[in-house]
Amino acid sequence: MSETTKEHRDCLAKGFPFWNDLTPDEQDMLCRYTRPVHYAKGARVHSPLESCVGILLLRSGQLRAYLLSEDGRDVTLYRLFGGEVCILSASCVMDSVNIDLYIDAEEDTEAYCISAGVFRRLMQQNVHVRCYAYQMTAERFSDSMWTMQQVLFMSADRRLAIFLTDELAKTGGDEVRMTHDQMAKYMGSAREVVSRMLKYFAQEGWVRLFRGGVQVLDRKKLQQLARGE
Amino acid sequence: MSETTKEHRDCLAKGFPFWNDLTPDEQDMLCRYTRPVHYAKGARVHSPLESCVGILLLRSGQLRAYLLSEDGRDVTLYRLFGGEVCILSASCVMDSVNIDLYIDAEEDTEAYCISAGVFRRLMQQNVHVRCYAYQMTAERFSDSMWTMQQVLFMSADRRLAIFLTDELAKTGGDEVRMTHDQMAKYMGSAREVVSRMLKYFAQEGWVRLFRGGVQVLDRKKLQQLARGE
Repeated sequence: MSETTKEHRDCLAKGFPFWNDLTPDEQDMLCRYTRPVHYAKGARVHSPLESCVGILLLRSGQLRAYLLSEDGRDVTLYRLFGGEVCILSASCVMDSVNIDLYIDAEEDTEAYCISAGVFRRLMQQNVHVRCYAYQMTAERFSDSMWTMQQVLFMSADRRLAIFLTDELAKTGGDEVRMTHDQMAKYMGSAREVVSRMLKYFAQEGWVRLFRGGVQVLDRKKLQQLARGE
Repeated sequence: MSETTKEHRDCLAKGFPFWNDLTPDEQDMLCRYTRPVHYAKGARVHSPLESCVGILLLRSGQLRAYLLSEDGRDVTLYRLFGGEVCILSASCVMDSVNIDLYIDAEEDTEAYCISAGVFRRLMQQNVHVRCYAYQMTAERFSDSMWTMQQVLFMSADRRLAIFLTDELAKTGGDEVRMTHDQMAKYMGSAREVVSRMLKYFAQEGWVRLFRGGVQVLDRKKLQQLARGE
C-alpha cells in the first residue's frame, strides 16, 4: 500500500464511526472509491440542480449549507469544518430525503469525496452505514429546523440583535458584559434560546463570545437584523 | 397468550419493519411495554414542555405536528394517519434531535404507545431499531423543511393561492379546470412545486384535487393566504 493510500485509509477509519462494522471487502471498496477533492473559496459544492456529488469528509476549510429563495434571499442552515462529514451533498442516496439545499465552500477546502453510488451500495448492504447516514441527516435537519424556526417566527434572532444593539448604544463600547442567564432575563426569554442564538451569531462571525460577555464584531449586521431586514 | 395480546403483537409486527430483526426477547420486551392509548379530538399529544410520550403506532384517527411561535402563529409540518408511526413524540430518545414540536389529535385517535425508555434501550442494543428511528426522523424532517422553506420564502404557497383565487374570480365557480403543468406555466413556476403545494393544500382541506383540475373548498383561507396573512 502506498503512503498516500495509507493516509487516506486512516482518515476514513477515523472519520467514519461505522469503519469497524465494515467487512474487509467493504473497507477496500470504500477506500477505492474515495478521491481527494479541492474546492476554492466561493466554489459551489452542491445545488438542487447538480448531480449528486457524494459524501464529503472534510480535512480543512469550511462549507456553508443554505436555502435560496427565487428572489435571491438566502438562509444559512449550518456550517461544516475540518473533521466533519457532509452528508447532504449526497442526499440522492436517500430516496426519502429531498431538500433543495445549496452548499458552498466558504474557505479553500480540502476533502475526501466518497462516490455516491458506492455509498448507496454500502448503505444497502450494511445496516451500520445506513444508520450512520440517517442519523447524520436527522442531526443536520434538527439544527436546520431550529434555525428556520427562529427566522420564520422572526423572534429570537431579531430580539437578541435588538437587545445587543441597545446595550451597545447605552454603554458606548463594543462589548456587553453579562451572562447568558442575565441577558435572557432582560429579554424575557429562556437562557437556552439565548445561548443557542449567541452560538449561531458567533458562527456567522457577528459576535465573539468570551467568559462573562459578548463582543460585537459586526454592528451593521446586528442593526439590520434588529430592523427586521 | 390472550386474544388482546395477540392482536397487539400482530399490530407491532406489521407496523415496524424491524420486527424480524429483533430477538425473541426483544420482541417480548417491545410487546410488554406497549399499551393502547386514546386521544380525544383536540387533545395535546406532545409539546416541548411535556415529558417524552413515547413512540405512537396509529391505529385510526389523525395527528397534526406543528410549530408554534411565541405570538401564537402556527405552521403545520405534517399529518399522520392510521398505520403510520409518530416518532417525534419520542424525540427525547435521540440525543441529537432537538426540536420544539407540538403534536395534537385532529380527530379521535387510537394508537399503541411504546414507552420511550424501552424504545431507547432497543435502539441502543439493536442497530436495526436505531436505523429505523433515524430514518423516520430524517424523512419527517425532510418533509418539514420543505414546508418551512415554502412558508419562509412566502413564495409558492402565496402565489398558488393568488392564482387560484384569481381564476375563481374570473370563472365564477369553485373549480379551476387546468392540469398542474398548465398552472405552473401560468404562474411561472415548476410543475413539481405546483403539484407538491396542491397536495399540501388538499391535506389541509383547502382544496380537493380531481383529474384535470382543482376544486376550492375553503375560499376564505386561500384569500387570507393570497393577502399574505
